Amino acid sequence: MKLTPHEVYDLLVSEDKILELQGQIKFYLGDVSIIVKQKDVVGNIMQEWLQGWLDHKGIAYALSDNSQMPPDFYLDPDNRTTGLLEVKAFNRSASPGFDIADFRMYVDEIVSKPYMLDVDYLIFGYDMSDSGVVTIQDVWIQKVWEITRRMKDWPINLQIKDKVVHKIRPAVWYSTSRVDYNVFKTLEDFISALDHTVYQNPDTKDRSGTWLVRFLDAYENHYGVRLDIPRWHDVSDDYVCSKHIEYSRVATGVVQKKEKNR
Amino acid sequence: MKLTPHEVYDLLVSEDKILELQGQIKFYLGDVSIIVKQKDVVGNIMQEWLQGWLDHKGIAYALSDNSQMPPDFYLDPDNRTTGLLEVKAFNRSASPGFDIADFRMYVDEIVSKPYMLDVDYLIFGYDMSDSGVVTIQDVWIQKVWEITRRMKDWPINLQIKDKVVHKIRPAVWYSTSRVDYNVFKTLEDFISALDHTVYQNPDTKDRSGTWLVRFLDAYENHYGVRLDIPRWHDVSDDYVCSKHIEYSRVATGVVQKKEKNR
Repeated sequence: MKLTPHEVYDLLVSEDKILELQGQIKFYLGDVSIIVKQKDVVGNIMQEWLQGWLDHKGIAYALSDNSQMPPDFYLDPDNRTTGLLEVKAFNRSASPGFDIADFRMYVDEIVSKPYMLDVDYLIFGYDMSDSGVVTIQDVWIQKVWEITRRMKDWPINLQIKDKVVHKIRPAVWYSTSRVDYNVFKTLEDFISALDHTVYQNPDTKDRSGTWLVRFLDAYENHYGVRLDIPRWHDVSDDYVCSKHIEYSRVATGVVQKKEKNR
Repeated sequence: MKLTPHEVYDLLVSEDKILELQGQIKFYLGDVSIIVKQKDVVGNIMQEWLQGWLDHKGIAYALSDNSQMPPDFYLDPDNRTTGLLEVKAFNRSASPGFDIADFRMYVDEIVSKPYMLDVDYLIFGYDMSDSGVVTIQDVWIQKVWEITRRMKDWPINLQIKDKVVHKIRPAVWYSTSRVDYNVFKTLEDFISALDHTVYQNPDTKDRSGTWLVRFLDAYENHYGVRLDIPRWHDVSDDYVCSKHIEYSRVATGVVQKKEKNR
């Protein structure tokens, strides 16, 4: 059967009650088996588990042959522009540790395949007890702009090593005590942030004159809609948390930002 | 029952035929289980597996409460100066990736507990197939000087980050095509190399005037034997491989080292 990413999510949560299950990892060798108690292992195997689960349920899928870029699964194998599903997992008692994608590869990818923006991220927040019992604490299904944010000096939260931009990193999108930056509200604002980062990043600055137009043309060609993208400077302040503004004021004694979020 | 580290090795290899077993790692969640195909996991769980195996066999042990330093197991729980067993595991198709110990902690440790030099290292060289089948390709039981060597600029093979000495790293002790440095032949030469490294390492230089005497006193106090330690400069050339010398000669056109190993 064919399901959409949201139907997969509903089946996992409502029918299979994944949030109530207890799992474990076991190692077998000879007559002896042990329970594996290494938390980081779980993050890497939820994608394999979901594949086993799709098989078990008889849900159609094709695997991506590029593990570097989303999606992991094509839920409509005959039409690889919809039903795109990316699986992520992280230790729920820490912050999300996964990468979204390499920045430069990502901005190139969505110009050539604008429907990649429609990927649904199925995200598992797991826990492993001291005795090795694995539970799924949270499951989310989100679009990319719902799990990303700006950072202080860049419009996108980036992993930067030796002054070189590498991966797009996730926000803590579920936090109710966020004190820095909000996740993006719209696809358009996310694109605005990408466009400004293409310009700001020395590694992609050469494409910054044409990147946005090429993306808008590709998107319109696929979806028949011309997106209206704001300038980053017109929206960037919207993504500073009011709590963060308060904190800055307390810390410096000066109101530094207009409090747009109030 | 009480066994020595060598008896544990013999039981694993000869009776339980560990080199003929096939193992696997499985993840269970809900109705779906999958075989985990991540090679690096195995390296971290062989110690837990051995503990399960010791339980299964009814072999006595006590666990160490310091995971930073050898040993992992005291096989004579009533006398924690003998029957010391450290477990290591590495992917047999790569080089040994484990650490021996932090250098500075190690040289301090063997002054206060000279019997730590008697630790037996039980080392598993494993393989994981593409389908996740785990096999043990090799098992060794070795003393520390049988799995360590010099490096080019240091008497011990060290992990050095930002010019600071960190971990003692293993040799490829089983290689028959070694082209650089031989493992130590004796405890005495290993101590000589440690002593010279204490002196050469800025981080331990302050103890270098007294380290060797303090160690020799502690060792004699425990074992009733005064070790005779050669000067590093008198033995260091013994540990350059003859193949490596040939290679240097070919590369530079000049014979750089006396060929002691011939």
